[in-house]
Amino acid sequence: MIFYRLWQVMIDLDQSKYLNISCLNQPHSDIQNAGVYNPIFICVISHTETSNIPGITVAGANTDLIKYTSAADSEYLYYGYCKSMNKIPVTPDGKPTPAVISRTALQLADIPLFVVDGGSFIKPSIPLISFGLKPGKNIIYGDAVDISEVRKAYDYGIILGRQLAKTNDLIVIGESIPGGTTTALGVLTALGIDAKFKVSSSMPKNPHDLKNRIIAECMQKININFDSIKSDPFTAISYFGDPMIPTVAGICDGGVTSGGRVMLAGGTQMSAVIAVLKALRRPLDNVFIGTTSYVADDLSANLLELMNSISPEVPVYVIDLHMNESEYAGLQAFAKGFIKEGVGAGGLAITASLKSRGRINGSVLLKAIERQYELTIKMSD
Amino acid sequence: MIFYRLWQVMIDLDQSKYLNISCLNQPHSDIQNAGVYNPIFICVISHTETSNIPGITVAGANTDLIKYTSAADSEYLYYGYCKSMNKIPVTPDGKPTPAVISRTALQLADIPLFVVDGGSFIKPSIPLISFGLKPGKNIIYGDAVDISEVRKAYDYGIILGRQLAKTNDLIVIGESIPGGTTTALGVLTALGIDAKFKVSSSMPKNPHDLKNRIIAECMQKININFDSIKSDPFTAISYFGDPMIPTVAGICDGGVTSGGRVMLAGGTQMSAVIAVLKALRRPLDNVFIGTTSYVADDLSANLLELMNSISPEVPVYVIDLHMNESEYAGLQAFAKGFIKEGVGAGGLAITASLKSRGRINGSVLLKAIERQYELTIKMSD
Repeated sequence: MIFYRLWQVMIDLDQSKYLNISCLNQPHSDIQNAGVYNPIFICVISHTETSNIPGITVAGANTDLIKYTSAADSEYLYYGYCKSMNKIPVTPDGKPTPAVISRTALQLADIPLFVVDGGSFIKPSIPLISFGLKPGKNIIYGDAVDISEVRKAYDYGIILGRQLAKTNDLIVIGESIPGGTTTALGVLTALGIDAKFKVSSSMPKNPHDLKNRIIAECMQKININFDSIKSDPFTAISYFGDPMIPTVAGICDGGVTSGGRVMLAGGTQMSAVIAVLKALRRPLDNVFIGTTSYVADDLSANLLELMNSISPEVPVYVIDLHMNESEYAGLQAFAKGFIKEGVGAGGLAITASLKSRGRINGSVLLKAIERQYELTIKMSD
Repeated sequence: MIFYRLWQVMIDLDQSKYLNISCLNQPHSDIQNAGVYNPIFICVISHTETSNIPGITVAGANTDLIKYTSAADSEYLYYGYCKSMNKIPVTPDGKPTPAVISRTALQLADIPLFVVDGGSFIKPSIPLISFGLKPGKNIIYGDAVDISEVRKAYDYGIILGRQLAKTNDLIVIGESIPGGTTTALGVLTALGIDAKFKVSSSMPKNPHDLKNRIIAECMQKININFDSIKSDPFTAISYFGDPMIPTVAGICDGGVTSGGRVMLAGGTQMSAVIAVLKALRRPLDNVFIGTTSYVADDLSANLLELMNSISPEVPVYVIDLHMNESEYAGLQAFAKGFIKEGVGAGGLAITASLKSRGRINGSVLLKAIERQYELTIKMSD
């Protein structure tokens, strides 16, 4: 089937090797390059108070800083530094935000960028496509997102996706939401997908037990018929999700139904978006996932199995960024189980390679990421 | 000179007749069609309390409704009706918002739309590119726009314009700000341009005396050296302008300096934007004005003379929409001195014609505008 889909970003075997891109769930030999000429990147920034639960995320050094993560990431994408806070988005021991990769890919391939405020906490100092959403609440204490907010996020997403598909042949959507893998686990579980021990983490020691316990407690507290919720993803998001999920799902839906192609740039969080679209019976023909090999190869998670149980027909593209070959320990960390992905890093690296028809290959990208990292570190001097 | 500008939207004599498009200040015979393939429309919505001055604008039936005008216009562009208010944007005697023309052109030519909140008062229920600006104050009572807000509007505009130029070969910028011709007059006057009796109006009886008196009073009140302000347009906007002007100027600057082409879709208000860019010594090579013949032929104003005194090298394109031939009195009103222009109507009609390479000609457009008008009127039944 996949072979006949003209729309697809198709890479033949040799070129995929050159680009360090592979497809996780479809045979390489079936894939040829259909071309990406006019892509656009949409970064959805959101907040969920679920990220306040200690031990749930590495993003931000402490609870106060977690609130600034999304704003810092999006300012960093535009400016190369953060305006709203005096900190650079790098941990004290030098591990950077994955936006270092995203910014590098955006610049190298001259890809336009828009940031969507899908319920952020701190508003970044940039032009911001506002959906007028509130941040998500902690799923432990009850409804995470008002059902009216879920619908609004989805409806506004459709409007935006439609506009974007008119002049862009690929809409790449990334996200920045601390604590997002836990809410993704919640939504997947509520939709009847066995996602335990499969969602990824920004830390090498994935706090699966903590995440599983949170979701189990939530489900116990809420006295609803879980069979009925399986075909009602908006309610699932309302109880267990975050405002990022319906925002991204809506943009994806609007883009695809207007004849566009959409790359969901991220790991297991984007699988929750796919699960929502699937439950809504929305078309997934022109949708695929693009992520880093650090998510795909993550032994403490299982993106492939997750995607196979949700929607095996959605191709999962993976890029090896060769961060292990970097001279910087902060960048090597990506290959050692830290950060792994986020802010659309993997999908943007793939898109940069495709748009440049292979000119931006693995070694070009790694060198440019290192230069970007050096600039970022210098800012803190 | 104009002849050699490859970038320009160029129409030869015959085609321009067919499209009902002409160039006001450049000889037709020099102009050939360079093509518009991938345009995007940006509608900047703003508010100035200057619009509270009785008699200054026809937009909105009364002072309270004036505040809703921009929000109503932008919701109408997306939905064909207004969400934030129960009113349709049509006066009691059937004169519609110029957004009727804009929406028709957007739909016919499948042009993507983004709305920028450049200091609006009521926030419309749509995805909105927010610049985080406050509405402008009444210029009678002192500073109209904080100088920091002027700079922010311009800086954010540059960021947005840069992104838009990456995937769009023409950025069409329109505006919706009630009372905007008065603040335009203020900025033009402060920049040393004799604009008295030259700015347009949404009413057939142009309240020139009122506008001139307001500006004269403001200039008397403010004890500054007007010679110094001539080369300091940000200060001029701060004293006499509105937040729309620096927002549009910034988007235009960002678009042009990134290799894009920009059509300022509007009448005399857009001449104030050109005056600001000129005073800032920003490039105007790829900038032009697109408006309706109702502004261009307005005997109570003088766009051509105004543009000649500001920047004669910027081409002014004009479209005749043949509204006088409409079967509806509400649409005939455009040809009788009412409304005339706004929400990018003229520029969008020109762009729709160009993108469709003449398929969307004057008669196609008029028929579609009439259908749009019928739908709009039906909403009120």
